[in-house]
Amino acid sequence: MVSETIELRGHIIDSLILPKVLDQILTHGANFKIGEIKIGERRADQSFARIEVSAETSEALDELVLRLRQHGAEVIERANVQLASAPADGVFPSDFYVTTNQQTFIRFDGKEIEVRPAMINSAIALDRKKESARAVKFFDVNKGNEIVVGHQGVRVVPVQRSTTHTDIFQFINTVVDADEPKSAIIRELGEELRRAQTAKRKIAIVAGPAIVRTGAADHLVRLIEAGYVDRLFAGNSFVAYDVEHTLFGTSLGMNPDLAFTRGGHENHLRAINTIREAGGIFAAVRKKILTRGVMYACVLHDVDIVLTGAIRDEGPIPGVTTDIIEAQKVMRQKLADVTHVMMLATVQHSLAVASMLAPAAKTVCVDIDPAAVERVVEHQPLQSIGLVTDVEPFLRELADCLSESRVRE
Amino acid sequence: MVSETIELRGHIIDSLILPKVLDQILTHGANFKIGEIKIGERRADQSFARIEVSAETSEALDELVLRLRQHGAEVIERANVQLASAPADGVFPSDFYVTTNQQTFIRFDGKEIEVRPAMINSAIALDRKKESARAVKFFDVNKGNEIVVGHQGVRVVPVQRSTTHTDIFQFINTVVDADEPKSAIIRELGEELRRAQTAKRKIAIVAGPAIVRTGAADHLVRLIEAGYVDRLFAGNSFVAYDVEHTLFGTSLGMNPDLAFTRGGHENHLRAINTIREAGGIFAAVRKKILTRGVMYACVLHDVDIVLTGAIRDEGPIPGVTTDIIEAQKVMRQKLADVTHVMMLATVQHSLAVASMLAPAAKTVCVDIDPAAVERVVEHQPLQSIGLVTDVEPFLRELADCLSESRVRE
Amino acid sequence: MVSETIELRGHIIDSLILPKVLDQILTHGANFKIGEIKIGERRADQSFARIEVSAETSEALDELVLRLRQHGAEVIERANVQLASAPADGVFPSDFYVTTNQQTFIRFDGKEIEVRPAMINSAIALDRKKESARAVKFFDVNKGNEIVVGHQGVRVVPVQRSTTHTDIFQFINTVVDADEPKSAIIRELGEELRRAQTAKRKIAIVAGPAIVRTGAADHLVRLIEAGYVDRLFAGNSFVAYDVEHTLFGTSLGMNPDLAFTRGGHENHLRAINTIREAGGIFAAVRKKILTRGVMYACVLHDVDIVLTGAIRDEGPIPGVTTDIIEAQKVMRQKLADVTHVMMLATVQHSLAVASMLAPAAKTVCVDIDPAAVERVVEHQPLQSIGLVTDVEPFLRELADCLSESRVRE
Amino acid sequence: MVSETIELRGHIIDSLILPKVLDQILTHGANFKIGEIKIGERRADQSFARIEVSAETSEALDELVLRLRQHGAEVIERANVQLASAPADGVFPSDFYVTTNQQTFIRFDGKEIEVRPAMINSAIALDRKKESARAVKFFDVNKGNEIVVGHQGVRVVPVQRSTTHTDIFQFINTVVDADEPKSAIIRELGEELRRAQTAKRKIAIVAGPAIVRTGAADHLVRLIEAGYVDRLFAGNSFVAYDVEHTLFGTSLGMNPDLAFTRGGHENHLRAINTIREAGGIFAAVRKKILTRGVMYACVLHDVDIVLTGAIRDEGPIPGVTTDIIEAQKVMRQKLADVTHVMMLATVQHSLAVASMLAPAAKTVCVDIDPAAVERVVEHQPLQSIGLVTDVEPFLRELADCLSESRVRE
Repeated sequence: MVSETIELRGHIIDSLILPKVLDQILTHGANFKIGEIKIGERRADQSFARIEVSAETSEALDELVLRLRQHGAEVIERANVQLASAPADGVFPSDFYVTTNQQTFIRFDGKEIEVRPAMINSAIALDRKKESARAVKFFDVNKGNEIVVGHQGVRVVPVQRSTTHTDIFQFINTVVDADEPKSAIIRELGEELRRAQTAKRKIAIVAGPAIVRTGAADHLVRLIEAGYVDRLFAGNSFVAYDVEHTLFGTSLGMNPDLAFTRGGHENHLRAINTIREAGGIFAAVRKKILTRGVMYACVLHDVDIVLTGAIRDEGPIPGVTTDIIEAQKVMRQKLADVTHVMMLATVQHSLAVASMLAPAAKTVCVDIDPAAVERVVEHQPLQSIGLVTDVEPFLRELADCLSESRVRE
Repeated sequence: MVSETIELRGHIIDSLILPKVLDQILTHGANFKIGEIKIGERRADQSFARIEVSAETSEALDELVLRLRQHGAEVIERANVQLASAPADGVFPSDFYVTTNQQTFIRFDGKEIEVRPAMINSAIALDRKKESARAVKFFDVNKGNEIVVGHQGVRVVPVQRSTTHTDIFQFINTVVDADEPKSAIIRELGEELRRAQTAKRKIAIVAGPAIVRTGAADHLVRLIEAGYVDRLFAGNSFVAYDVEHTLFGTSLGMNPDLAFTRGGHENHLRAINTIREAGGIFAAVRKKILTRGVMYACVLHDVDIVLTGAIRDEGPIPGVTTDIIEAQKVMRQKLADVTHVMMLATVQHSLAVASMLAPAAKTVCVDIDPAAVERVVEHQPLQSIGLVTDVEPFLRELADCLSESRVRE
Repeated sequence: MVSETIELRGHIIDSLILPKVLDQILTHGANFKIGEIKIGERRADQSFARIEVSAETSEALDELVLRLRQHGAEVIERANVQLASAPADGVFPSDFYVTTNQQTFIRFDGKEIEVRPAMINSAIALDRKKESARAVKFFDVNKGNEIVVGHQGVRVVPVQRSTTHTDIFQFINTVVDADEPKSAIIRELGEELRRAQTAKRKIAIVAGPAIVRTGAADHLVRLIEAGYVDRLFAGNSFVAYDVEHTLFGTSLGMNPDLAFTRGGHENHLRAINTIREAGGIFAAVRKKILTRGVMYACVLHDVDIVLTGAIRDEGPIPGVTTDIIEAQKVMRQKLADVTHVMMLATVQHSLAVASMLAPAAKTVCVDIDPAAVERVVEHQPLQSIGLVTDVEPFLRELADCLSESRVRE
Repeated sequence: MVSETIELRGHIIDSLILPKVLDQILTHGANFKIGEIKIGERRADQSFARIEVSAETSEALDELVLRLRQHGAEVIERANVQLASAPADGVFPSDFYVTTNQQTFIRFDGKEIEVRPAMINSAIALDRKKESARAVKFFDVNKGNEIVVGHQGVRVVPVQRSTTHTDIFQFINTVVDADEPKSAIIRELGEELRRAQTAKRKIAIVAGPAIVRTGAADHLVRLIEAGYVDRLFAGNSFVAYDVEHTLFGTSLGMNPDLAFTRGGHENHLRAINTIREAGGIFAAVRKKILTRGVMYACVLHDVDIVLTGAIRDEGPIPGVTTDIIEAQKVMRQKLADVTHVMMLATVQHSLAVASMLAPAAKTVCVDIDPAAVERVVEHQPLQSIGLVTDVEPFLRELADCLSESRVRE
């Protein structure tokens, strides 16, 4: 029987940290003994617990403590991280520490260094000279880089539920189902976006083709015009639908104003061809080929456009990053300072974005498929709102809210 | 090898009657020889085909011809129907003819009699004296009633696509998916309802609890106030939700204006208890206990309320028919003269209603689950529109359309 | 500011009772102060917490404490329950206590009385003479019955996660998704059923028509033959499908062995007619009309058959309780001693059954629709397993497991 | 009023060609007059129709005839195709003809040339010297290439339902729903695969990660070992799951044999790191790092592995084509001679593959999401089977069938 003492700090009860830690201990067949527990008497107070964890073998204890750390447990004796060199470009040492999407610190040379940027499913590379640490993907690492191995000296600080309910994200944190009301939440979301805009935070949209197909492009344009969109993440097909709709008034040959005829792919491909011939979105705006629509609004209002490719793409439209590793690099950079993300009707792209967000970013996911919403929202459980609904009325209502609130001012 | 000659009449090509008939023949391993075919040269013209069908055995031919008749085929030699007596109350003779949801005629004594009312999955009872025929369910039949057996002498006239596109139902006939635009269709539907109202047609709503839960009750009330609802079909739980919302402002204890707390069943049960104590919906309105909401609006505007029970019900609320056979009788009667039905967010109830509609009734089905919409729409393929969307924005947009169109007048 | 002191006992940390209680306090805008906290040092140990809760008004405190009690909180000063008379048959006094699906005690005359049977969404009726209490539905109550009002004197004991992991239900407690492995869980479930059978526990099946339609009826028959089914809950349509399949080898006219032709409703209605003519399932078995299938196996192996009606039913088949209030009474009685329920491919019926189960009953829900599984499993979060999968391979694998384990013996 | 005469040939009734053509004419507000119609008297006979189509304007007529051609209509006067030069690399002339996924011929210099390969959503490039034509994507075209514009001289031959029912694909052609039987179809599919194997046809699998996660990898390995897989199309994550499962026995840290603990991403990333360090799948097999699993079986049995990237990928695993345009080129080439494709639990990848298949390829799509199955099956309506079911039991049953049939021989 071996044991180690861990400590938990913060809102460990109402952020479910203590229960999760105890649950993990029991699930792993280990035992615990609570040495001390102090629970904050008032909302804003921090709580504290010291727990002795014991397991059969030191391997089992090690494995368990690794998990507990990911829930924010700290081991008492503060040791430095262990490091190993990357054996080749793009390869980590075999026992590399795998990051979570929580704020993370490493202890090196007796000092704590915050891992910046933090990102899920990465290794941690230490820059000994600069005394800095960053989350690295396979493509970031070069032979010889110093990478954290094991879990000693790593401290994780889970996002904790705020004790002062200032915004909607801390108030609710689950999925609003199809048969539940959404108007009040959309209104609150509007308020949150207004505050974010005033505070010059960065708001991003991840946009799926259904926005254009359902006739919601105009609503998104209103958000862009009102300054509520700083970055637009989309795929090749979103752009193709937007351009087709702008040039021909159709989506896959279907007229959204009547929806009575279902056409083919001709207009879709011609739209792509037109943009390729023009030399890209910006050129098409400059040449007055594109005079309406979401992409036009983005160009006009300096929205940063981040376009990435997928295996089903036609084209591609110039400006789309077709190599997915390159695309991930660009996305990661463009997401680094984003504080609010609305993920609209595009599950794969949303999951990719969600895996690159900073620990504190707030997300809203809208999709008509409840399973899709669940999967996206899981990524950031305490800062995400999921709405199971049609994207068109959602965007209409949000754009209405935000124009009203403008008028009110 | 035995053979029989059938004839097809009407818009047999563009209503897909001819292809379906030939497909059935091939699928059953039979052969055909087309004796004569005349295809209408212009839209409004009728077409005609005479086909000799041959099969290995006369049983196989019989079985096949039965199916072809259900697609509208007539056999050349016009024979009278065959009849047998019901052996007991509630029991049909064993070879009883099973009806479809198409207009149906039987030949008796050399004359054709239309089956009225027509209804799917029934037997046909003949009243020899009155020279009338009607579709009967198990519960309609008494020992000794004369019931049609076999398929001889039965003629089915499938609904055929109109040649003059006057309304939305004949223009499209499939499901509008989540990622397709709906505004134009909702507008057209508004026009159709306005025409139906003007022509004093009967409009019914089949209402699911999600209407109240999503905050769409007010929109439905607007439709009722504007006179667009003649009958309301609902279950016990719809009423319970409506009353809970009206009395306590909650749905299952959840406040739809904020949606931030999720409560229990208390208010729901108290709402039911209140109506039980008052003695029913009408009494509750009279006693001014119920002063808002869908049920209140129905009472005020003389909407016929048809309430039926289900195994999960709490209560029941007085006025709910809890015996499902009794409920079916009431529903059948209340649906007999209905020409337009909107089925909103309640798949089981919608399927029940769809199976009791007259052949020419037009239906709109709205649900967020695509599979549910498909199943309902299948019942009346040429007169149904399915919308995969959230019921709240659907009803809001429809109520907006209809109030606009009022103003325009 | 008013305050009250509550106490929590049991596995309050790892059963998430403490966090839920603190969360409720914060969510309701109230405050807490922890007087004492003792956390069990070893797995099997009980924990304890005394908490002073304070709120702005005594109404708010009351409302809050009501909720906390539903999570198992007890108020310190033990008061007797308050009682009021039912004002009329079928009507509760207006402030009646609404039960949860947890084990519940009331304090009367200084003594604690367990509510038996316990059932969710009911009132509590006291029998002063017998010193007994039971959960009552609207239909159970008569004018003058003494009903618990308010929440004083009511103590709820939530099901707590067992500290000794003896069975699968306490090991996992969520939903196994479509893309997760199921074989190991099905194996464990087989073991659990074997133990239940040995211990003479009562096992119930809630059976949906998809069992017959997918060709899984034979697998269910194997379970029945091996003695793993004590009660069968089904609807009219399950029986109709089973009989149609047995008599004609089809499901809605479709041959499950080839599935190549899709037929109509004829055989379905003829099957119902045959059973009606025979005078019911038992008569049809006796008369050797029914010689195979699930219903036949039930009759042969003395499985208790509980059949209830729904608004879409054809027929009904004799033996189906068509009045839903009567049906609820029968179901409640037939579920009273059931310890294990498998709910297979029938969401409405499963939800009805789930709402009538005893607090400790264990349930398995199998459906291909993830949303359906979630809804059913929510009812008994610590004793339910949900499997998102096709019912046919599930039943095949389970029946295989159970026959193997027989052979092994 | 302008008019043109078209002709239809083949199984124009039972393959629904005539009805679709007439439907299109009416939907476009045009008129028709049937000059001659001859319907084959026996199954194997071809039918013929000559139809005069008239519309208001020549633009409308042109647009309409374009659509009719896509349903197989030929215009009487046989004209040569019109050609224009590609204005730049990767850009088509603006009026380029957009291909369907049907067999297509162009008339050039009085002769008919078949477009080879045919592919949907492409342009047609003519090689004047070789008198050959091929479907080209944007990335195939260079400045100056001769591209077909307009639709004159293009003839499309729709796939027609075979008159001799030799295989399952011509027997049924829709989706088998969750509540329908699948065993007989799986058996027939096994027969079809056996015939394909004997005839040395090429069978491809498109494999989603759920195959590994649900524990179906072994079943797929059995198919590979038995020689039923010639090509494997998969994404980076399928390989990562397979390797993780092989090296660690887990899927995303979850043990499929017990499924009781849900772990993190560590093993997943370590698996990827291991393969990266080894230098790829082949190297890992050679170095005996990989000794089991799907990838190992592919290497051992010479299955062609085609791996493509997606925006959510970790890694990538060496051998994955990360540029999606390059990936499309590889896929197109590797699909050119494939006759049978099984698309298993991966909708995006399946849609990409479906859009690159030859007109006559047969596909089976298996997914638990009905909407996903519908979308994939739509691509090849007369040669596709969709099964809404869990992939694990599907593959188990198929592998069982194929080993049985081996034994039988």
